[in-house]
Amino acid sequence: MIPGETHTRNLKLIVEYDGTDFAGYQTQRQGLRTVQTVLGEAVGEIMAHPVLLQAAGRTDTGVHALGQVVSFRTTSAVPTQRLAIALNGKLPRDVAVAAAEEVDDEFHARFSAKSRTYGYLVWTRRTRSAIWGRYSLHVRRPLDVNRMRAEGAALVGTHDFAAYAKMGGSPGPSTVRRLERLSIRRLSEGRVLFVLTANGFLRAMVRNIVGALIDVGKGRIDPGTLAMILNGMDRDANPCAPAPAHGLCLLRVDY
Amino acid sequence: MIPGETHTRNLKLIVEYDGTDFAGYQTQRQGLRTVQTVLGEAVGEIMAHPVLLQAAGRTDTGVHALGQVVSFRTTSAVPTQRLAIALNGKLPRDVAVAAAEEVDDEFHARFSAKSRTYGYLVWTRRTRSAIWGRYSLHVRRPLDVNRMRAEGAALVGTHDFAAYAKMGGSPGPSTVRRLERLSIRRLSEGRVLFVLTANGFLRAMVRNIVGALIDVGKGRIDPGTLAMILNGMDRDANPCAPAPAHGLCLLRVDY
Repeated sequence: MIPGETHTRNLKLIVEYDGTDFAGYQTQRQGLRTVQTVLGEAVGEIMAHPVLLQAAGRTDTGVHALGQVVSFRTTSAVPTQRLAIALNGKLPRDVAVAAAEEVDDEFHARFSAKSRTYGYLVWTRRTRSAIWGRYSLHVRRPLDVNRMRAEGAALVGTHDFAAYAKMGGSPGPSTVRRLERLSIRRLSEGRVLFVLTANGFLRAMVRNIVGALIDVGKGRIDPGTLAMILNGMDRDANPCAPAPAHGLCLLRVDY
Repeated sequence: MIPGETHTRNLKLIVEYDGTDFAGYQTQRQGLRTVQTVLGEAVGEIMAHPVLLQAAGRTDTGVHALGQVVSFRTTSAVPTQRLAIALNGKLPRDVAVAAAEEVDDEFHARFSAKSRTYGYLVWTRRTRSAIWGRYSLHVRRPLDVNRMRAEGAALVGTHDFAAYAKMGGSPGPSTVRRLERLSIRRLSEGRVLFVLTANGFLRAMVRNIVGALIDVGKGRIDPGTLAMILNGMDRDANPCAPAPAHGLCLLRVDY
């Protein structure tokens, strides 16, 4: 570092949030409470200059995160090892920084990401839960996990997922994604956990896939329907509703 | 049942709630949101007459429940097997009825209870969590579970727990209680779960015991202090702060 030159560091944060009271991750019009706005204010205050936050996943309204990754550049000399605790002191209860580290200058939370992993939690029991209902979808009857696994297998691999994207969204140049993993596990107490890993997800793609799988698990749609929807590549042809946001959580991002 | 006579049923509900946005279970002055008020309104609406709810545990502000028990008498003919789902349709998201059943005429949720079981969850990790922080106390360093178990053993049994009750509270005719179980278990990811069962608890007794145990686990107080506090029987002599409400949950009530 040349004396007198301003040293710029590139920092990476692992961020958790309870999405219930947020209008999603990304800053939108004024007055909406978003994670980016709340986190950006805290980071700007600690760094003593405005910052531009880059995030790995632009989660929708109501979606939670245990492993969102955010990066930003700063000229501040605040020690990295004290950053997480300093930020948590400023942040509201429903956002927290789990870890902070300095990364290479080339690192970009969004563009450097190799894969994202989302979890979707379903709770099957007769009555809804006042506590677990915040982080899981309540389904009244048991789901046929084996049937969901068999049908879901058709989605794993590289496909055009346009039929599983949000209608009316602007998906960017390509709707082809590589779904690397789709695991469906039965946990204790009637819980079913879906874990999906892909190089990237289209808008609402996880919720559309899980919504269709739940219809499979309930026996509502015929075998082969998921592959048919995929091959139709037309969102309007998908008869399954997306699973609601509150069961979804961004678990981790790999680089 | 004699024709023309009004048949009165005695009903028992298992109730869950997220205590975060409630000023405790019991109805207090007007304008405070309590579980009893919210639940009483829903039950009254479904039963089409006002009801008097009896609850096993009058949990404080911020305390959660997975197994609160509430009983009430009704002349309504609403079928018991439909009651839980009908009530859940009326109740806000943070309260739910897990089960409803008809019980003997003598049953009283509070006076018939033989024991209450509370859980207290502590999360030990360097940074706080935005999601688990809602239902657990964040402690920055690991706790010495063996030391807590050894010290806690002095509290099990029948004792005058006045020194572990809330200062200034009116404890009723006796402050003697039988603590039947005090288990402390290490769970995954740095979580420590305290489970306490007693024939009854004084106001804030679980939080005072757990607060003192956490001081033991941190190495802040000398061996023998918990027994000394107990034998002093004077709340003012207890140097340990009660553990905060949000880590506490009424797990079950046995009859």
